[in-house]
Amino acid sequence: MRDSLRELKVELGDRSYPIVIGQGLLGSYDLSPYVRGSKVMIVTNETVAPLYLESARACFPGKQVDAVVLPDGEKYKDWQTLNLIFDRLLENRHSRKTTLVALGGGVVGDMTGFAAASYQRGVPFIQIPTTLLSQVDSSVGGKTGINHPLGKNMIGAFHQPEVVLVDTDSLRTLPPREISAGLAEVIKYGLIRDKDFLAWLEREMTLLIDLDTPALVEAIYRSCACKAEVVAQDEREGGLRAILNLGHTFGHAIETFAGYGNWLHGEAVGTGMMMAADLSLRQGMITEEDRARAVGIIKRAHLPELAPAGMNPDDFLRLMAVDKKNVDGSLRLVLLRSLGDAIVTEAVDMQKLDATLRNFCSDTTGVEV
Amino acid sequence: MRDSLRELKVELGDRSYPIVIGQGLLGSYDLSPYVRGSKVMIVTNETVAPLYLESARACFPGKQVDAVVLPDGEKYKDWQTLNLIFDRLLENRHSRKTTLVALGGGVVGDMTGFAAASYQRGVPFIQIPTTLLSQVDSSVGGKTGINHPLGKNMIGAFHQPEVVLVDTDSLRTLPPREISAGLAEVIKYGLIRDKDFLAWLEREMTLLIDLDTPALVEAIYRSCACKAEVVAQDEREGGLRAILNLGHTFGHAIETFAGYGNWLHGEAVGTGMMMAADLSLRQGMITEEDRARAVGIIKRAHLPELAPAGMNPDDFLRLMAVDKKNVDGSLRLVLLRSLGDAIVTEAVDMQKLDATLRNFCSDTTGVEV
Repeated sequence: MRDSLRELKVELGDRSYPIVIGQGLLGSYDLSPYVRGSKVMIVTNETVAPLYLESARACFPGKQVDAVVLPDGEKYKDWQTLNLIFDRLLENRHSRKTTLVALGGGVVGDMTGFAAASYQRGVPFIQIPTTLLSQVDSSVGGKTGINHPLGKNMIGAFHQPEVVLVDTDSLRTLPPREISAGLAEVIKYGLIRDKDFLAWLEREMTLLIDLDTPALVEAIYRSCACKAEVVAQDEREGGLRAILNLGHTFGHAIETFAGYGNWLHGEAVGTGMMMAADLSLRQGMITEEDRARAVGIIKRAHLPELAPAGMNPDDFLRLMAVDKKNVDGSLRLVLLRSLGDAIVTEAVDMQKLDATLRNFCSDTTGVEV
Repeated sequence: MRDSLRELKVELGDRSYPIVIGQGLLGSYDLSPYVRGSKVMIVTNETVAPLYLESARACFPGKQVDAVVLPDGEKYKDWQTLNLIFDRLLENRHSRKTTLVALGGGVVGDMTGFAAASYQRGVPFIQIPTTLLSQVDSSVGGKTGINHPLGKNMIGAFHQPEVVLVDTDSLRTLPPREISAGLAEVIKYGLIRDKDFLAWLEREMTLLIDLDTPALVEAIYRSCACKAEVVAQDEREGGLRAILNLGHTFGHAIETFAGYGNWLHGEAVGTGMMMAADLSLRQGMITEEDRARAVGIIKRAHLPELAPAGMNPDDFLRLMAVDKKNVDGSLRLVLLRSLGDAIVTEAVDMQKLDATLRNFCSDTTGVEV
């Protein structure tokens, strides 16, 4: 069962922690050494609970395990739902020594992490991500938070977990759309920092789509390792870490336009990365061959190739202006200098940006920039 | 005007910051060197705004100064009111480079600090405390947060300010009850750690009650210095810092029983410290003379000498059991080993505790422990 167990350490000084990746871990892997007190509170949602809550409980032998089940969906990533966690913690008298456990995808992970960062000004937490996106993205970096009606992830904290447990078996219950959304972030690591990994992905994409375990373990390991390297150099997102946002500025605009939860985050990032590659070509930074490889591997992951129906270039410009990565209002984008090498730039040619936006909008009725 | 300007550094490595204490600072002291970006958001309340908002604006020459005015009172220290800050920040497109400024008492300071800790996962903030309690307590330590219906300050973060500006003139508009409440925390520093300061307070209490400026500057300076020493040794409240909670376990029970905001925090702490001194005597830790000095100086600050009418010993026991300073349910209290020397102990004699509770409850109908 555990032939392909891999372990990776995220190096963050006294906040360092391991990521354990393998098959069949839920229900058998002992996480109790990572729990300092006697109590644990598992936070999950109504979709994941029937599938994995009991096996997750079994990972904490000898501990008193409490659980709270949230409604499922990005639209619940708000204060009201977060407060359900605080209600349960206080009703059941959890002290500062309790450990929170996030069992689910990115929404559960972000909310549980923020609850842990804020409950009594900070308690430890453990992540058991059950979607591919959360396994390769939220597992590393310590970003936690909730949405505000005026913007995604606007309220949150940096809070590192004690350990992350990734069981690839949990991907078997995921809809194919969610696998594709996760692969968007996997591909991102190849595009921004690791050309060899990109070539590996071009060879192995079919196995990944088919949920081949060794291929999944390898892809998750290399994705987490890539992100861990970046985060170790820039924990609080002052510089390098911004390259992890390749495709995200376009992607956030798409998600906001579509309404939270209608497009998956990874889907929007997939299309956003195609747009970034398109603009990188137009700005003379990469070759047509590079653009075609970038767009090709994203398409092979079955990600959407156009912005949502009805979205026009002006919608993008309007929605990108409130993106939180903007420094004092100027537009900053992550673009490709070559495959495997991303940069953050404010040198965005507005005519070329407009051409890219038009290229991805089926509705191009917006006013010219 | 500035004869008695004092400056103190809170030593917390790369989170160190100065506290500037003096008279006539609001409206003239230049805080713009502490603002990294171009924008500032002052958070205040409807009582403080008409008195000091314009002078606070004048402390940020050359900056774009925005403001949000919250309703006044502990009962508004909740998520809904906190969200008014986030709404304004997002509506006015404040980026990660904005600086929040807390102008007001402890409630404004705690909420603004938590908003700063959480807005886009953390922005800088500056404190301009305008009550004596917030000047000597919330100025140092970085504790921020909001209340939950099931407990005070249950949701929050540790977040250190860039600078704290204390203008003693702002105390002239405070009701006498608020001065007394602040003096409770001032006296606390003498009781837990500084017998010389306690003796100074016994000599100068009349001047303090009369708002004599040099006496206020000295009392605030020594209080902040005492707290800064403790916090520097224990920023995240793992050990020593717990002595700052002298009187607070009893005090929280009183505040909760009375309903948030009906007793001032400092009033409850004042009575709580009398109770702690009473129990310290009963447990054979201090002499009757020490107890009498502790109780005497608290009385001279015009603080309440009994628990609220209708509160009985059982109310205390019930409300103290959910206090967040409890580790896994056992009762921990801060008691006095001598004047100027507090300790945290779990060795609480329940019979003696009951005697103390009865001594401070006019209603002693509770069941015996």
